[in-house]
Amino acid sequence: MSADRESARERLLALGFAAADTDVLLEHFLDAERRGKPGQGLARVTWLEQRDDLDPRARPAAVIQEETYARWESRGALGYLTLEAIVQAQLASPPRRSRLIVSDASPTGVLGYWVRRLADAGFVAVLTAISPRRLAHPAGGPPLTGTNPIAIAVPSSDGRPVVADVSMAAVTHGDVLRGAAAAADIIPFGDDQAHKSFALAVGLQLFCEALAGPDRAAVMLIARPDGDPVPAFRSLAQGVRLPGDR
Amino acid sequence: MSADRESARERLLALGFAAADTDVLLEHFLDAERRGKPGQGLARVTWLEQRDDLDPRARPAAVIQEETYARWESRGALGYLTLEAIVQAQLASPPRRSRLIVSDASPTGVLGYWVRRLADAGFVAVLTAISPRRLAHPAGGPPLTGTNPIAIAVPSSDGRPVVADVSMAAVTHGDVLRGAAAAADIIPFGDDQAHKSFALAVGLQLFCEALAGPDRAAVMLIARPDGDPVPAFRSLAQGVRLPGDR
Repeated sequence: MSADRESARERLLALGFAAADTDVLLEHFLDAERRGKPGQGLARVTWLEQRDDLDPRARPAAVIQEETYARWESRGALGYLTLEAIVQAQLASPPRRSRLIVSDASPTGVLGYWVRRLADAGFVAVLTAISPRRLAHPAGGPPLTGTNPIAIAVPSSDGRPVVADVSMAAVTHGDVLRGAAAAADIIPFGDDQAHKSFALAVGLQLFCEALAGPDRAAVMLIARPDGDPVPAFRSLAQGVRLPGDR
Repeated sequence: MSADRESARERLLALGFAAADTDVLLEHFLDAERRGKPGQGLARVTWLEQRDDLDPRARPAAVIQEETYARWESRGALGYLTLEAIVQAQLASPPRRSRLIVSDASPTGVLGYWVRRLADAGFVAVLTAISPRRLAHPAGGPPLTGTNPIAIAVPSSDGRPVVADVSMAAVTHGDVLRGAAAAADIIPFGDDQAHKSFALAVGLQLFCEALAGPDRAAVMLIARPDGDPVPAFRSLAQGVRLPGDR
């Protein structure tokens, strides 16, 4: 991996990203690889190289920053960098109780990566985002929603947060990009109960669009927990693998 | 239905509920019937009659009421009445931007019913709740989570909000109660992708427990939308039935 890492780092620098931004992108892709999500991993370096709309010097900005609400604009920056800036801003100035953060971040990568870092710092965090419309109703019709993942992270006094990170599609677009799945498999998951994941995809789509805007939108909720349910839950689970465990 | 309605009303009054509370319960059960969710409908009157822990005069109370956060306690009241009080409080005093509302409401009935009323008033609303632990990991083990529904409601300028309301179980406990499904069918939905719905159930379980408390917990987010995405979405959908449409 270290040779891959060095090579990827050089390629990102060659695209014009500053060293700090390069490290942000690299950490995200490497974490995706480690967690078995190669579609969001180093393959994305090639994907970035193939884009003709990269503005590697673009910087996201917080246009509203209130105690319980913030709005960020990517201003041409990759969504990874917008989400990194959002995470850093929460860690630097966390809410007393809770805060809703809306943005136009895109692409968003592995959502669990961002909320895990907030859970590592003691916060409950939920993040959902829309992506290009690829999911149709299970009964047919035009593509209506993105694969619309949602990630939920809950901190734990035992140092092992639980991070659920679920896309509404049976396969990811990243898996299609790296040739591990066919575009036709980007359908709502759940076979004969796919109407359920489709309903969630629609709900999250319109939730994001209503709060953050059309086409590109990510919404995060961060909150201080009142309880510490994870250790007792792990004990109840008797060794069953929980979401986000490696 | 009107004979059923009168009979149900008399039976609820006979249980000791005040007239106003009886109407709240009745409206909820009748709406569930109309929306094809009989497991949450009038069958619940019988279920209430069989409970030995009813305190029909108990009243929920808001113990914290801030601009962006509220905490409610049921104090022995049925969760339906707690959620009705929460909905009424939001309509009477909506947030400037957003508010997180935590409670110990249980049972919670059809979550879509509560958020729909907020969407009818122009708010985006999300509600999730935990229920007794009935779902195990798809690979086996002890029951770890409730069926843990989540409802997402988005208002629309055309007067027809979209309301997604999804439980993580393949069948509802209500369907088991009315004899339409077997308890053994209360498993995470999605067949060979049931790990996804299970991950969501775990995430929502710990989210609710961390913010609202163990065993009984419901968490609502209400927010003012910045956009009005539903009409364009309906147009894009070309007549495909959307979540919450009748």
